[in-house]
Amino acid sequence: MRIIDEKNVEDLALGAAVLGTGGGGDPYVGMLMAKQAIRDYGPIELYDLDEFDDDDLVVPTAMMGAPTVMIEKLPNGDDFVHAFEAVSKYIGKPVKATMTIEAGGLNSVVPIYVAARLRLPMVDCDGMGRAFPEIQMVTHTIYGISATPFAMADANGNTVLMETINNRWTETFARSVTIDMGAMASIALYAATVGQLKEAAIRGIVTKAEAIGKTIRLARVQEEDPVKTVREAVGGLLIFKGKIGDVERRTEGGFARGTAHILGIDDYAGQEARLHFQNEHLAFQVNGEYAVTTPDLIALLDVDTGEPVTTEGMRYGFRVAVIGIPCSEKWRTPKGLELVGPRYFGYDVDYVPVEERYG
Amino acid sequence: MRIIDEKNVEDLALGAAVLGTGGGGDPYVGMLMAKQAIRDYGPIELYDLDEFDDDDLVVPTAMMGAPTVMIEKLPNGDDFVHAFEAVSKYIGKPVKATMTIEAGGLNSVVPIYVAARLRLPMVDCDGMGRAFPEIQMVTHTIYGISATPFAMADANGNTVLMETINNRWTETFARSVTIDMGAMASIALYAATVGQLKEAAIRGIVTKAEAIGKTIRLARVQEEDPVKTVREAVGGLLIFKGKIGDVERRTEGGFARGTAHILGIDDYAGQEARLHFQNEHLAFQVNGEYAVTTPDLIALLDVDTGEPVTTEGMRYGFRVAVIGIPCSEKWRTPKGLELVGPRYFGYDVDYVPVEERYG
Repeated sequence: MRIIDEKNVEDLALGAAVLGTGGGGDPYVGMLMAKQAIRDYGPIELYDLDEFDDDDLVVPTAMMGAPTVMIEKLPNGDDFVHAFEAVSKYIGKPVKATMTIEAGGLNSVVPIYVAARLRLPMVDCDGMGRAFPEIQMVTHTIYGISATPFAMADANGNTVLMETINNRWTETFARSVTIDMGAMASIALYAATVGQLKEAAIRGIVTKAEAIGKTIRLARVQEEDPVKTVREAVGGLLIFKGKIGDVERRTEGGFARGTAHILGIDDYAGQEARLHFQNEHLAFQVNGEYAVTTPDLIALLDVDTGEPVTTEGMRYGFRVAVIGIPCSEKWRTPKGLELVGPRYFGYDVDYVPVEERYG
Repeated sequence: MRIIDEKNVEDLALGAAVLGTGGGGDPYVGMLMAKQAIRDYGPIELYDLDEFDDDDLVVPTAMMGAPTVMIEKLPNGDDFVHAFEAVSKYIGKPVKATMTIEAGGLNSVVPIYVAARLRLPMVDCDGMGRAFPEIQMVTHTIYGISATPFAMADANGNTVLMETINNRWTETFARSVTIDMGAMASIALYAATVGQLKEAAIRGIVTKAEAIGKTIRLARVQEEDPVKTVREAVGGLLIFKGKIGDVERRTEGGFARGTAHILGIDDYAGQEARLHFQNEHLAFQVNGEYAVTTPDLIALLDVDTGEPVTTEGMRYGFRVAVIGIPCSEKWRTPKGLELVGPRYFGYDVDYVPVEERYG
């Protein structure tokens, strides 16, 4: 067990924004919320799964919706508590801890907010090792863990609870209701025992994200080439360097979708790239050819600071380095690729591990 | 208390289809389901509200969605039980009876199915005295009764339960999920005590619908002018007689919407009428002028048999009599007209009671 205080939260949100591959919510908003909660209710305790009993129950908490909307409308913290309590009340057994379901800028710290408010511990794992746009896209699904009982709550005080026959149905219903709630909802889902999580979850992700964030924080004041330092800290490969041109965006079906055009600079001058996103960066093409695709991570870093650039933060003229990071081995299985491989998202290409192309 | 058997169900479904003003589901489908349930589980008991204690809890059951879809996909009875049980489990107190929320062809008999399967009594009242297309459009809303806890279930085994801050939000979320469920869902809602229902509900509607159905059944074999007999039995006024021409239909936002063109016959030869519907018949225009609008009832009767014609049953060439029936006084209040008056549905006209124009 270790204590997570305001300082840790800053590093964590920053590092998770790299693993969030452009999505998982704005790190700034999440950080503000979690720091305020720690200030108001005290620091929280982060545990390894081994420190709990296998029967202990964990309920993750998160935000669902289009990140573009979250920037304009700060989440209301009560919603998270409503969603969490709806699930625990439904299960009718004590919940021992919360956790993050995705390592994204916002969703890495939402559970810290919940843990601080409810004086609950948090466990050091998630269900993606990155961020993904849909509910069923977690390693829990690969291991047969149900997303339901799934609760969602909005800032008006509405709560919706569901029991579905599979996690794809949860996504379908929850996406529609999220749109009705204003493209943003607070959710609690994937209740699981510690024993189940030992098999299904991606462990140590909070600690990993925090270490990445700390590297970025130090790099921007100390390093000549912050991108290189951050890239090495995340175990990533340099794919491209360029200047962001046009960004086409649309909020569609409850997602922020679009494509960014990136024109090569430095060693990549004269080359052209396209980054496709659906909340998260999902596919990267250089000169028309797929270079990196989901489930491998595609991170955009500001070339001057090494800081991650989110899908909603991309602006014309930004100079970015594009980093490919190998995903968890759990995603490289047939079941994993069926859930989150490039073809699921409509990209007509087979998955090739990023290190095979750029290693 | 009186017993409802298979024979009563036939009359009830037929009579409710008149009060359903074209909506509330197909009477044939509902009748088949309810009769089968009585055959399998035994007749049910219908009570007046006065026969219960004021504290006794009643949970209505119904079908939600586009009637056009229900004809193609027979409802799965288990869904109703799932929805009903989700609400009773959530409330955590014994539910003493079920009831119909709308007097429509299908929704008048859904509670009979549930009552037969669960061996529960049914109370003789509803929340409309007719059928309406949206969840909040019940007299319960006028009297401050919440639609939630609201449960919905589909044939796949999915269940969604919600708590909303008002009944309009229930409609919004439930409509989206109904579309996801295939434009059809089984629902349980508006849990209320008998004391609340004595004030808010429209009493005696099951008995009234059954009497209307019996009149139709007898009229088609005994009467020379069955339309006149049925019209007198429902206390209605003759508005128009004509032949159905083009019917424009679209399934839109989970509703069956459209307009039917009707060309006058007999005394109405040379006149032209338009019937506007959204699941139910909502406004009737003769020669471009509004003749009858919601909340008064607009019923179409087959001129040869006096039988009601549903919105989805309207076909080119059908000869129909259009009957206007005064609605419950509860709907004629400012709160009632705000919920279901013509302007709510987008018709640019003030409500005028049908008997003022045609009495």
